[in-house]
Amino acid sequence: MTTELSPDALTGLLERARQDYQALVGRGLSLDLTRGKPAPEQLDLSEDLLSLPDGRHAAADGTDVRNYGGLQGLPELREMFAEVLQVPAAQLLALGNSSLELMHDCLVHAMLSVVPGAETRWVDQERIAFLCPAPGYDRHFSLCERFGIDMIPVPMTPEGPDMDAVERLVAEDPAVKGIWCVPKYSNPTGDSYSDATVARLAAMPTAAPDFRIFWDNAYAAHHLADEPVEIADLLAACAEAGNPDRVFVFGSTSKITMAGAGVAFFGSSPENVRWLLAHNAKRSIGPDKINQLRHVLFLRDADGVRAHMERQRALLKPKFEAVGRILEAELGGTGLATWTSPKGGYFVTLEVPEGCAKEVVRRAAEAGIVLTPAGATHPYGDDPRDAVIRIAPSYPSPAEVEQAIEGLAVCVRLVGYEKRAA
Amino acid sequence: MTTELSPDALTGLLERARQDYQALVGRGLSLDLTRGKPAPEQLDLSEDLLSLPDGRHAAADGTDVRNYGGLQGLPELREMFAEVLQVPAAQLLALGNSSLELMHDCLVHAMLSVVPGAETRWVDQERIAFLCPAPGYDRHFSLCERFGIDMIPVPMTPEGPDMDAVERLVAEDPAVKGIWCVPKYSNPTGDSYSDATVARLAAMPTAAPDFRIFWDNAYAAHHLADEPVEIADLLAACAEAGNPDRVFVFGSTSKITMAGAGVAFFGSSPENVRWLLAHNAKRSIGPDKINQLRHVLFLRDADGVRAHMERQRALLKPKFEAVGRILEAELGGTGLATWTSPKGGYFVTLEVPEGCAKEVVRRAAEAGIVLTPAGATHPYGDDPRDAVIRIAPSYPSPAEVEQAIEGLAVCVRLVGYEKRAA
Repeated sequence: MTTELSPDALTGLLERARQDYQALVGRGLSLDLTRGKPAPEQLDLSEDLLSLPDGRHAAADGTDVRNYGGLQGLPELREMFAEVLQVPAAQLLALGNSSLELMHDCLVHAMLSVVPGAETRWVDQERIAFLCPAPGYDRHFSLCERFGIDMIPVPMTPEGPDMDAVERLVAEDPAVKGIWCVPKYSNPTGDSYSDATVARLAAMPTAAPDFRIFWDNAYAAHHLADEPVEIADLLAACAEAGNPDRVFVFGSTSKITMAGAGVAFFGSSPENVRWLLAHNAKRSIGPDKINQLRHVLFLRDADGVRAHMERQRALLKPKFEAVGRILEAELGGTGLATWTSPKGGYFVTLEVPEGCAKEVVRRAAEAGIVLTPAGATHPYGDDPRDAVIRIAPSYPSPAEVEQAIEGLAVCVRLVGYEKRAA
Repeated sequence: MTTELSPDALTGLLERARQDYQALVGRGLSLDLTRGKPAPEQLDLSEDLLSLPDGRHAAADGTDVRNYGGLQGLPELREMFAEVLQVPAAQLLALGNSSLELMHDCLVHAMLSVVPGAETRWVDQERIAFLCPAPGYDRHFSLCERFGIDMIPVPMTPEGPDMDAVERLVAEDPAVKGIWCVPKYSNPTGDSYSDATVARLAAMPTAAPDFRIFWDNAYAAHHLADEPVEIADLLAACAEAGNPDRVFVFGSTSKITMAGAGVAFFGSSPENVRWLLAHNAKRSIGPDKINQLRHVLFLRDADGVRAHMERQRALLKPKFEAVGRILEAELGGTGLATWTSPKGGYFVTLEVPEGCAKEVVRRAAEAGIVLTPAGATHPYGDDPRDAVIRIAPSYPSPAEVEQAIEGLAVCVRLVGYEKRAA
């Protein structure tokens, strides 16, 4: 990433960067690129949900969705998302409004009860560790911290986590009970797991008999490119490899319909589904089935989901294209940055010279451009190279995205050239 | 409860009971009095919810309820239920669709984190116990079983739990960390806690510094009598007594609007609220605020809740009156049964002669009348006197309630006279 520059040339570039930064600060921007939130226009696409189910209250089998019961969720909604999430409908549960909650609750149940295949509750073991492909999703890491689960970073590659490292770590250490995966359009790199990665995850020997892959398929239907990426079916691969209970699949409509009022899904082996249902039966008398019926009436079927996601794509694609176009125009050839060009999902990962990410984020904040804290993409908030910045362009308007990325590029030039000159 | 009967008179009564039971079985009934579910007519009262918020998506403060965020829930809904649940709005959270979930989650957080006032996590203590006023709510007991919490039964009286027993148990045993309370129109007796009971709960010394009252105010607005029962404000009483963190208040609209799609509430001291919010922040990006807005638009304010509950009362009261009327007509003066005449809530408790409850429930089931299993009202499903039967008359139609109670009375006569004759 380094480029040879004469001292004079560097001085000139640094001077220009300082002037540009002063001008940027002077503009008094107030822009937020921190979180992967849908924009209001995306939520407008699901406007019809706000008056559904419009008096209806019978599920396909005649169940009155207004009353208690139905721990598995509406069969017709599970059927609709079986294809999207690659889980047979019989093994897929439609539950509350948040897949993060389901991940939390699976950890809780594994801590406080014996997960299928385990000898003891996790809470009774001296140490529990999870593999954390990094860069990754900060909320996964927060759950580990909350429950005292040690995090072991594993490098993320364009094909998924470094599988040589994963295989070695799970084979040698029985305390390694899980791995966090966002297999499609990963948060934050946008990369998707290759078929080889999926096959190795399914088949690898693990020292822990109760090892679980937390397969957070958050962006299963969230394409940006003309050609959707398809990933291999991990649940089927695990069953074929003789490890049927290895994977917990999570998904939701949070970034399909309403971010705060969607439906979350859990899929797994029959044994794991029975395990979760048994614990859920103590906790709840059933999910919000009216909201599930609302989603059935609105999305109709898997084709309806695909058509809806095309409309989402039309709104999101220009923002992601603007990010790539401006970064190329402002930073291309400078040797100061590389970035991802995701085919789906919600994020662009920007890599700046080692030791510069925190300072770039700080400078951007001073200029009114708020980014996800540098380091958040890594366990314990610690990016050892201090190089990764997550860009979340979904929420601001296209014009705001352009302003923000132009400003961010100024900060990268300022911090990058300052570091070179130091 | 025993009445002197000549052997001949008893033989005659038993013979008539046997004939009546044969006739009852011959009718081939299929009636279900097991659970406190609202009837479809009750759910119809909230029909308007099924097309709300009808395109609107802004909360009172302008928040877009469709998007992520808002861990505390909508302020205007918290304001509305502050009065109903006797919790200041600032200390009341509006969350998901189930208060049972919130009770479960508070136990989880106390098990896996240090609750305010505690020295260690509950999971790190050798033994944890909860006081269980009995008869009580089976789902409370199931949560204790699920988490390995010992249950200590305490007799329920018409003024609440036997406070002499409660005070002695909490004073002497630091393993006693909590008590389950349904303070108004208790499940299943319908009794409400007296002011003296509330004052003693607030002020009593406890050996455990982290003792918690799980105050499940499930029937706060669910009156049956012309004059609503008012209970004392436990949260305020605890603060005044110098035990501000002692109580977790729970409530929901499950039996106000939609049983599966209502809104649940948690209220407590500022310290406890911060504690729960901190843990919830790891688990969720916020509750379903669209459903909360839906409830705001539908119920409008605390007066709206009261007016709505009057309509619920009009549907429920005849069913409860039928239960009392038929029990009196069929069993009055027999010495075979006593029953409660609740001023609110969802249940009638029927007491039959010691050793008869299981057999009555069995005989009723054979005649097609399904009741909550005898014993379910007590910890570990064990009613030591085998005398308590819970009647849940809300769901069936008035005609079905009458049929079911007439049949139940036949079973009580049959089993009661058989026992006397034995």
